[in-house]
Amino acid sequence: MVLYLNINLDPEIRNIFHGGKMHMLKQIDLNSDVGESFGAYKIGMDEAVIPLISSANIACGYHAGDPLVMAQTVSLAAENGVGLGAHPGLPDLMGFGRRAMDVSLEEIGHYVTYQVGALQAFATQGGFSLQHVKPHGALYNMAVRNTEISNTIAEVISGLDKNLILVALAGSNRDELAAIAERHCIRVAFEFFADRAYNPDGSLVSRSLPGAVLHDDEAVAQRVARLVETGTVAAVDGTEIELKADTICVHGDNPQALALVKKIRGSLTDSGIRLCSMGTFL
Amino acid sequence: MVLYLNINLDPEIRNIFHGGKMHMLKQIDLNSDVGESFGAYKIGMDEAVIPLISSANIACGYHAGDPLVMAQTVSLAAENGVGLGAHPGLPDLMGFGRRAMDVSLEEIGHYVTYQVGALQAFATQGGFSLQHVKPHGALYNMAVRNTEISNTIAEVISGLDKNLILVALAGSNRDELAAIAERHCIRVAFEFFADRAYNPDGSLVSRSLPGAVLHDDEAVAQRVARLVETGTVAAVDGTEIELKADTICVHGDNPQALALVKKIRGSLTDSGIRLCSMGTFL
Amino acid sequence: MVLYLNINLDPEIRNIFHGGKMHMLKQIDLNSDVGESFGAYKIGMDEAVIPLISSANIACGYHAGDPLVMAQTVSLAAENGVGLGAHPGLPDLMGFGRRAMDVSLEEIGHYVTYQVGALQAFATQGGFSLQHVKPHGALYNMAVRNTEISNTIAEVISGLDKNLILVALAGSNRDELAAIAERHCIRVAFEFFADRAYNPDGSLVSRSLPGAVLHDDEAVAQRVARLVETGTVAAVDGTEIELKADTICVHGDNPQALALVKKIRGSLTDSGIRLCSMGTFL
Amino acid sequence: MVLYLNINLDPEIRNIFHGGKMHMLKQIDLNSDVGESFGAYKIGMDEAVIPLISSANIACGYHAGDPLVMAQTVSLAAENGVGLGAHPGLPDLMGFGRRAMDVSLEEIGHYVTYQVGALQAFATQGGFSLQHVKPHGALYNMAVRNTEISNTIAEVISGLDKNLILVALAGSNRDELAAIAERHCIRVAFEFFADRAYNPDGSLVSRSLPGAVLHDDEAVAQRVARLVETGTVAAVDGTEIELKADTICVHGDNPQALALVKKIRGSLTDSGIRLCSMGTFL
Repeated sequence: MVLYLNINLDPEIRNIFHGGKMHMLKQIDLNSDVGESFGAYKIGMDEAVIPLISSANIACGYHAGDPLVMAQTVSLAAENGVGLGAHPGLPDLMGFGRRAMDVSLEEIGHYVTYQVGALQAFATQGGFSLQHVKPHGALYNMAVRNTEISNTIAEVISGLDKNLILVALAGSNRDELAAIAERHCIRVAFEFFADRAYNPDGSLVSRSLPGAVLHDDEAVAQRVARLVETGTVAAVDGTEIELKADTICVHGDNPQALALVKKIRGSLTDSGIRLCSMGTFL
Repeated sequence: MVLYLNINLDPEIRNIFHGGKMHMLKQIDLNSDVGESFGAYKIGMDEAVIPLISSANIACGYHAGDPLVMAQTVSLAAENGVGLGAHPGLPDLMGFGRRAMDVSLEEIGHYVTYQVGALQAFATQGGFSLQHVKPHGALYNMAVRNTEISNTIAEVISGLDKNLILVALAGSNRDELAAIAERHCIRVAFEFFADRAYNPDGSLVSRSLPGAVLHDDEAVAQRVARLVETGTVAAVDGTEIELKADTICVHGDNPQALALVKKIRGSLTDSGIRLCSMGTFL
Repeated sequence: MVLYLNINLDPEIRNIFHGGKMHMLKQIDLNSDVGESFGAYKIGMDEAVIPLISSANIACGYHAGDPLVMAQTVSLAAENGVGLGAHPGLPDLMGFGRRAMDVSLEEIGHYVTYQVGALQAFATQGGFSLQHVKPHGALYNMAVRNTEISNTIAEVISGLDKNLILVALAGSNRDELAAIAERHCIRVAFEFFADRAYNPDGSLVSRSLPGAVLHDDEAVAQRVARLVETGTVAAVDGTEIELKADTICVHGDNPQALALVKKIRGSLTDSGIRLCSMGTFL
Repeated sequence: MVLYLNINLDPEIRNIFHGGKMHMLKQIDLNSDVGESFGAYKIGMDEAVIPLISSANIACGYHAGDPLVMAQTVSLAAENGVGLGAHPGLPDLMGFGRRAMDVSLEEIGHYVTYQVGALQAFATQGGFSLQHVKPHGALYNMAVRNTEISNTIAEVISGLDKNLILVALAGSNRDELAAIAERHCIRVAFEFFADRAYNPDGSLVSRSLPGAVLHDDEAVAQRVARLVETGTVAAVDGTEIELKADTICVHGDNPQALALVKKIRGSLTDSGIRLCSMGTFL
């Protein structure tokens, strides 16, 4: 009976309740950006990747996605038992939300409200609830650099549904983000990028630098499993850094990306790690 | 105690519960389209008209409105005790949603879901709920001509929140609309256009015909009060037709329109008719 | 010297000037819709189809296309010696310009001006001129049903550059369209759809009817060559109808479509028919 | 006859041809942003301000304006003998083009090509040519901070029509801008903001600082006339700085702004300064 009350406990403590053996409860979430098609335009391989992940970041019509795509993607994710997440972006369809814009905190807050609300409606119609919110593209990167933006998004989420989890970059201002989430009575999921190199300080190596993206699938799959098991990862300079993550970001927009997801899943299974939607263990 | 269970009862029956005297409960709703500004573009006189009405139809970003405007308009309407309504339109900002488009029922349904959901989020953040949904412009007119569209919108509304009221044209397929609402377990509010002439069959005189819009404010105000009192109105050919309405559509986008709203309110007060949000008596 | 004055002469007459042998000058244009990608969204196989056609209908940003795509497509088409054409559509990116909208003639005229002007600028920057204008999707179909729309577009084209050719459906109001073009001092190119069935009156069999689209590539290729040679085609009921066309519409958005284009080219070559941009012989 | 050849001569030299008396040829251009309405949304007082200015910066549909508004504004400006200019902006209608976006030089170039081309078409249809191009809002400010952007825009303009004049901020990198214009064989017009305070280095005082905008209409009108007469202006710290301008930016979106334009015109007339479109003297 006690277990039902443990939902917000720290995983370490929960492990003790489960018998004190850390390896028994090793679990991780895999998230991927989906629902990015628009009108006649198809992007991504949603049908193939959704069965492989545990949480779906669904575009909400600003940088990608349209109402029909949102409806279909919510259905597809729900049928596969995948956690439903909103993936709000900047109002820049032409730039796919990848270009930073000089928007105010107020604008960001209202843009996120609008998009999350729109996606919630499709979830509600299907009898589902949203699990998480992950800012997209430039908005995500702006939030990494400016925690005021994360705070604004957390505030919005809190005002919509306190069960919604904010997804944020692991390694970037962990304590500050945890404090923001606590202040707004929501949970935060820290995210690790499977195929990105990390600096010794836990930040991502800029894409403009060589080696920013890892191309050895086997090595990527191994480091993901190792991260889940040990909470550490090798930085770009070889130093071992601590990086606790709740969810791993993977891609599903081409066959190579899908092959990597399958390899990561294989590596997790081999290590006895369970794949679970973030909402089940955070 | 019984009153709490009467929420869906027919007004006539409710009147009996209230004492059996019809005149005691004469009431009507006034609705107006608001929140139609967009970015740097201001349209309408929302600050002036909102205190004069009982239900607000708030644009949701497709034909008009943006997230900042939606947030402000929800606040303004709620502060004034005005019922919050979604005013979804076609995706045609350049045409203000006034141009019919050859969209499928599926597209209409998902467009309405998207827009109502987005507005719901702003209401939720303020601690409020939406009261009604009224299709805008060309979508409204398309629904008048094709009850399959009304059925689709009713289905969407029902899937989002069964407390939401669908606003539809009084005189147009009343029985069919009532059956649609009943089938989807929602309520329908029949709407009367204060300053529009009606054909003997209860349909609106086309705007392309002379006399379609009434310009004598005093007469308009009188016929509104008379409609509420008697459930009848004089058609364009002088014949008296039956037309029961729950809500009166008024405009607030220029000083003349505001003057008419005030005149209508005066006429209603003089006739002992109370102004109430539709959600309180339907 | 006489040849320079013959530019608007009927091909038959011109053939006589060229030596009186009909088969020497059999020629046809192949056109295809290209440049329909948008931002991160790729659609079509432009690199593959453009070398196979003689005239390119380039999207102009309303229903598809963006400035980067337009610049790239103009370059690609020009490098391949393909005639550059504007493919203006309705302002409906979400619907890919395929949904009829209740737009006025004035709106249509200005939308076409806007889009053709934008594409002209990319052509000008590369040192090229536009050859033709072909309305896209719903706008094309609206023009087929309503020659007032064709007249408006012709007027716009004439006001921009009298060398621009208007592309219109062969079989639909041929005489009326010729009169419209003459009135506005422009040329019209009549278009045949390679894989669409025709009614005995020269109109297209509606896509909602069975047999509207032909799927036997070999037969399609044969009828195209036959159409060019004889000016006739077999209608859906088997009757032989007269249908003179200047340009054949083909598709290039999937490998099957490309295979058909190649088959059509082969069939034309086998019949001694030259492929030429419409601007060279109209 | 010689005068016809002098069109590109330095004003000082031209004065000599005109008789050697500087005051005889004192002239200035007044420019204003117009054509910023969109669909049902009206902004600005174009009918009132256009007769008061000599050059019109016409929005091109990205940050403001639509094809109908562009057609009307081109007509209105041309009827008043006002120089027609394109006012291209960032693709951000919701933000009115006022929010900086992280766009590449290539994107900027193609966005400007698209918009200038679209406006050129409306001018062409009326039998007119465009006179100038002035980037709008955030794009203007980005160009002030980064001359590579000005270079890109100059290159685009040059590729479209070498008679087009680039409008740039006076005081900001004058020599560099002159070199850019010369490299691309176009002219540049330096612009002065009538009601903005200047730093001693010739840059604008940031709007976020007190005193950035001048509110004493009489003083504003006097400094404009003085600037034209002497080529100097008092900076915010009282020091007199040299600032040669070809065109003065004024506003016309409210009655106060219009009153200021009239005051400036009065002050110019009193000083014997003629109002001329920039294209006539640059």
